Amino acid sequence: MAGNTFGTLFRITTFGESHGAALGVTIDGCPAGLPLSELAIQKELDRRRPGAHAKDSDGTERSEKLNPAGTARKEADECEILSGVFEGKTTGTPIAVIVRNTNQQSADYGDIKTKFRPGHADYPFFEKYGIRDYRGGGRSSGRETIGRVAAGAVAKRFLAGRGITVTAWTSEAVGIACETFDAGEIEKNEMRACDGTAAKKMLERVIELKAEGNSGGGVISCRVSGADGLPVGLGEPVFDKLDAELAKAILSIGSIKGIEFGAGFEAARMTGKENNDPMRMDGATGKPRFLSNNAGGILGGLSTGADIVFRAAVKPVSSISLAQQTVDSSGNDCAIEVRGRHDVCLCPRIVPVIEAMTALVLADLILRDEASRL
Amino acid sequence: MAGNTFGTLFRITTFGESHGAALGVTIDGCPAGLPLSELAIQKELDRRRPGAHAKDSDGTERSEKLNPAGTARKEADECEILSGVFEGKTTGTPIAVIVRNTNQQSADYGDIKTKFRPGHADYPFFEKYGIRDYRGGGRSSGRETIGRVAAGAVAKRFLAGRGITVTAWTSEAVGIACETFDAGEIEKNEMRACDGTAAKKMLERVIELKAEGNSGGGVISCRVSGADGLPVGLGEPVFDKLDAELAKAILSIGSIKGIEFGAGFEAARMTGKENNDPMRMDGATGKPRFLSNNAGGILGGLSTGADIVFRAAVKPVSSISLAQQTVDSSGNDCAIEVRGRHDVCLCPRIVPVIEAMTALVLADLILRDEASRL
Amino acid sequence: MAGNTFGTLFRITTFGESHGAALGVTIDGCPAGLPLSELAIQKELDRRRPGAHAKDSDGTERSEKLNPAGTARKEADECEILSGVFEGKTTGTPIAVIVRNTNQQSADYGDIKTKFRPGHADYPFFEKYGIRDYRGGGRSSGRETIGRVAAGAVAKRFLAGRGITVTAWTSEAVGIACETFDAGEIEKNEMRACDGTAAKKMLERVIELKAEGNSGGGVISCRVSGADGLPVGLGEPVFDKLDAELAKAILSIGSIKGIEFGAGFEAARMTGKENNDPMRMDGATGKPRFLSNNAGGILGGLSTGADIVFRAAVKPVSSISLAQQTVDSSGNDCAIEVRGRHDVCLCPRIVPVIEAMTALVLADLILRDEASRL
Amino acid sequence: MAGNTFGTLFRITTFGESHGAALGVTIDGCPAGLPLSELAIQKELDRRRPGAHAKDSDGTERSEKLNPAGTARKEADECEILSGVFEGKTTGTPIAVIVRNTNQQSADYGDIKTKFRPGHADYPFFEKYGIRDYRGGGRSSGRETIGRVAAGAVAKRFLAGRGITVTAWTSEAVGIACETFDAGEIEKNEMRACDGTAAKKMLERVIELKAEGNSGGGVISCRVSGADGLPVGLGEPVFDKLDAELAKAILSIGSIKGIEFGAGFEAARMTGKENNDPMRMDGATGKPRFLSNNAGGILGGLSTGADIVFRAAVKPVSSISLAQQTVDSSGNDCAIEVRGRHDVCLCPRIVPVIEAMTALVLADLILRDEASRL
Repeated sequence: MAGNTFGTLFRITTFGESHGAALGVTIDGCPAGLPLSELAIQKELDRRRPGAHAKDSDGTERSEKLNPAGTARKEADECEILSGVFEGKTTGTPIAVIVRNTNQQSADYGDIKTKFRPGHADYPFFEKYGIRDYRGGGRSSGRETIGRVAAGAVAKRFLAGRGITVTAWTSEAVGIACETFDAGEIEKNEMRACDGTAAKKMLERVIELKAEGNSGGGVISCRVSGADGLPVGLGEPVFDKLDAELAKAILSIGSIKGIEFGAGFEAARMTGKENNDPMRMDGATGKPRFLSNNAGGILGGLSTGADIVFRAAVKPVSSISLAQQTVDSSGNDCAIEVRGRHDVCLCPRIVPVIEAMTALVLADLILRDEASRL
Repeated sequence: MAGNTFGTLFRITTFGESHGAALGVTIDGCPAGLPLSELAIQKELDRRRPGAHAKDSDGTERSEKLNPAGTARKEADECEILSGVFEGKTTGTPIAVIVRNTNQQSADYGDIKTKFRPGHADYPFFEKYGIRDYRGGGRSSGRETIGRVAAGAVAKRFLAGRGITVTAWTSEAVGIACETFDAGEIEKNEMRACDGTAAKKMLERVIELKAEGNSGGGVISCRVSGADGLPVGLGEPVFDKLDAELAKAILSIGSIKGIEFGAGFEAARMTGKENNDPMRMDGATGKPRFLSNNAGGILGGLSTGADIVFRAAVKPVSSISLAQQTVDSSGNDCAIEVRGRHDVCLCPRIVPVIEAMTALVLADLILRDEASRL
Repeated sequence: MAGNTFGTLFRITTFGESHGAALGVTIDGCPAGLPLSELAIQKELDRRRPGAHAKDSDGTERSEKLNPAGTARKEADECEILSGVFEGKTTGTPIAVIVRNTNQQSADYGDIKTKFRPGHADYPFFEKYGIRDYRGGGRSSGRETIGRVAAGAVAKRFLAGRGITVTAWTSEAVGIACETFDAGEIEKNEMRACDGTAAKKMLERVIELKAEGNSGGGVISCRVSGADGLPVGLGEPVFDKLDAELAKAILSIGSIKGIEFGAGFEAARMTGKENNDPMRMDGATGKPRFLSNNAGGILGGLSTGADIVFRAAVKPVSSISLAQQTVDSSGNDCAIEVRGRHDVCLCPRIVPVIEAMTALVLADLILRDEASRL
Repeated sequence: MAGNTFGTLFRITTFGESHGAALGVTIDGCPAGLPLSELAIQKELDRRRPGAHAKDSDGTERSEKLNPAGTARKEADECEILSGVFEGKTTGTPIAVIVRNTNQQSADYGDIKTKFRPGHADYPFFEKYGIRDYRGGGRSSGRETIGRVAAGAVAKRFLAGRGITVTAWTSEAVGIACETFDAGEIEKNEMRACDGTAAKKMLERVIELKAEGNSGGGVISCRVSGADGLPVGLGEPVFDKLDAELAKAILSIGSIKGIEFGAGFEAARMTGKENNDPMRMDGATGKPRFLSNNAGGILGGLSTGADIVFRAAVKPVSSISLAQQTVDSSGNDCAIEVRGRHDVCLCPRIVPVIEAMTALVLADLILRDEASRL
């Protein structure tokens, strides 16, 4: 049983390989009447493109030279809405979006036709499907996230109608941690870091790693906020809890190796007294609020109304040009040096993917919550 | 849309509240012909009972006094199979298992009838369902895991037929970390720790916390191994990857705040060269093997054949008798001291629940993998 | 992948075999706050019991002798709610209901241990599961419908809150068709026929068939109405249309061999002009209404607001005591005469099952419709 | 919760409206290694095109004049595979297929912008989604079946690998029934009837109806056969039985108003002795076989190995140019004459759609059956 469908009421199915004709997504369950255009989707797709996120203050895109964290691959990634939108609004029918691949030089990938790249999905994919789509990873390529990001753009629109925003950023990369948080800084620097000074150091380290033929990882943080607070009670006990659904969504992204909510692994070392978030009535809103947020906005798997906060671990890029030990599909030991265009650190490009998946979970759980009430 | 069903091909639906008539589970999709008795299920249920895991070398159960980590509640938790088993084997029809509640003194919980306990699901549940089942948490009680553990026992049987075992243990608790690993030690000490010396220190700290009216958390580790290695290729890209499904399964357990696979958050600080696991052919098996396991046995969301390894963060028990600030359901600030029988640290009792959820994910993905082949 | 779950938002999972410990159902997704007691469920369960539907005008149950259409088996079929209801209302958590089997004389069925009964599921079940649960059909027994009827009683409660009623009746049985329709007659006669005179003839024919060791079939009609009309737009294009969901629900009942909506197979012989239902505005309600109902209340797979109307074909009972040609599980030709207690015509007992499945479909599609709106 | 996904293990999601950019389907769960090309899909798509099924003996397509049953709309309906196929074989990743709309003259449909066409989905769609996609029916147009037929072509390929074929034909149309069965005749005549003489009479009646501005219905039969018999045990009790799944699949097609399996509604009038299919061992195959097939190849919801046989009722085309009473979206009574290009009788074009849906059900249940075995 394949697993290319995500969500239940706001449900997406993605398709496409890195070197096939096109990638895309169908979104089923988006309510009718939501304003939607290709522009809104394109904007998010542009954020996940290599070297695309960093703009100078005058709005011009920075050159590849200044953005060494990204791959050198040039992709327009122009989206087309095939269905589900009429006169600028969703119609309640499935929304299909595609992005054509325009840069499919399979030749680049010839030398990995038989060798399994360490840290890659090559070996288990070959064992599972009996087929080697050696053209750059096929379905396990990072380009698979195009469908996620396109769908996430629609989910973000849905959330915007309820005053909900999802923001992710790099809080740590290539061994360097951010020390300050400036939301305005995130989309300004190449690392999508929340600390401009740290971002500069990260870029320097990225350049070193690139020169070495090596790579690095990092940590991405994500926060969901509401203009008037978030809805209370999102999440469906006992299995489809808010944190469970988010964990699945985020871990389904390639290169993610861990997730923690609120205080996360630190909570494991606290006492109950330290970790429990006390509550008081908020005079302004007339609603209860939490004096701290170790819970990350989630109790018993349900949203509490406080900001939803989590962090995800990103492993270093597997494709490195340093020599590594591996085996080939004929069962021989060999060495491999992975050539070609590759990111050094995925953090800045995973940021919009994490936002997309988070938005999809929220949209789905909002619809599910409403369907659970008389 | 409610969320009490887990899994797709090996699919369970749990039901029951802490103070209702009974708790239980239906398991749909367990293949016919699997040997199954109530004994196998009871054995796992006994492991999750308070104070039940620790036995003296002569087989007698230790007294409550020696097991301060658990609650003082006495529960027989005897299971009954209602369907799906005939002449000692599964029949391919749904297996229903129930456990009756025998100790439903609602009176114990009277003083939390209106106050929301900090760190508990009380507040969001009330907002979501408009109903306060104040009898000890209702569906958000830890007793909800009875259905999971019963179903997990069936999944373990299924896995045993393929030589696969799932083992979890406490690797850190109440601020104390294990320093050695001894598999034989785990079921011998009250903390289910893999290090007997650390276990003793943990218990001392538990006694102190109990005296203070406070509580603690910890970290649980889990490993899945196969007698002849694990199957390669378990997991269904791109959303139902092995790590994504495990993350959802584990985060759906109450009190879990994070999960990491293999090197996890540490991988975020490594370079690609450090983190990639090199491969070599194994002369003995004729199959590739990995020289390290930073990946935790998972690449591209698929099992690699190496042991599957993850760690989960357990928050400190929310119910503490120290005074805390909170609000009540009428919107008044107030203080609360949560009385009654409560665990100090959940780690030892969550160990079998983590094993159960892991076994359920594996059983489901094995069936799904087989269904994906011609 | 097993199939014991039905519905998506109002979702049930049934379990239990004819001679196991108990049968039952879990209902997940019933909104919180719905009044519910065991009495409401028991009332529906009593309707599906053999010989239970016919009562004298003084309220006493008629003797078995006067009710030859039913089997002679005595079953109390008392239900117990295990979870999901607190202080007389649903809580939003799964509702589990069980009915214990009290009359499990396996001995009665010894002679069918190896022979496949013609018209029964014996042969394909044996081939599928490799197990012969010869104790009266196991999961393929009519007793399986207990879970459906219990869940249907909850769905009926849900629909009642919206003024919607579901009524089914025998419109034809053992070769005799009803010629008049009197709603008040249905629950008064043993056949649940809508025509008392026809009902008497049916019973006479039933007695003859019983004496012959033979059996008969019939046709059941069903109508869904609303106090203020039905909601317009129930059904989810393009696959989960209202008629598609009802067709699946009804065909999933044992012994049903066909279904038709509105004019059904007769529509195949009409012209468009004859079959199209003209529309006019209704002065009283200010809403459109249909001047005829050949569509059976469904257009494009969506409810139109008119009554939903369908008919289902019930095959004759397979268990007959006349000699039949068959084979046994060792691959030998043989003859069989099926002894024991069996219905002659299932129509009266299937009526409540059809109502139950219809109510479940409606409850689910109402929740789904609401979840599809902004 | 929307309903554009069908199937569980062999799962499709269709999208597209009659006058949008494109229609299509994603197929998830098709095993890797299946030979597949656009040609195989195009061949089936061509069968559902208007006027496309009838070819002269020399292979040239007949003129529109000779094929009055079809609409005059010209559509190339060329398909493109976007993903999931590599070097002529499926890869186990989702297969996406699209067909661009090339003939979107919305102008043709201007006069139905506000009036609800009797017998059409216009009114309930407007009530459900609050949007009127007046361009020829939008998602409720017959063009929606393009996705089904494309996916069905893949399912047929899957079944062909197991020697299973699905064949449907018109057995009755515009009031005229076939009296003989000649399989070779079906694809030769414009009505896809199994009786060439009846087909001629049907066409004469079609021409008359067209002249009147009226339309007609019919009955389509379908048979599933296996080169070495069909697998025994397909279908998943108790809800996803083979007949239940087929009933849903077929009733989900626009214009279908009923379905019956084997003897169907006639079985309702038989006795058990007449209806039960006796069994004998087959010397040639060593397997049991049935001496008759009143069951239509299905017992207890499982395939018996005999041919699966069912019949579906097709209502007359709703779009007729005769004047009809209706209302408009402002709530006024009015008259309507539906102009434009419309079929007179849908039977020949629904034949490939019924085959497609049947093939999808079979492919799904074969995978499900295999996943249910140890």
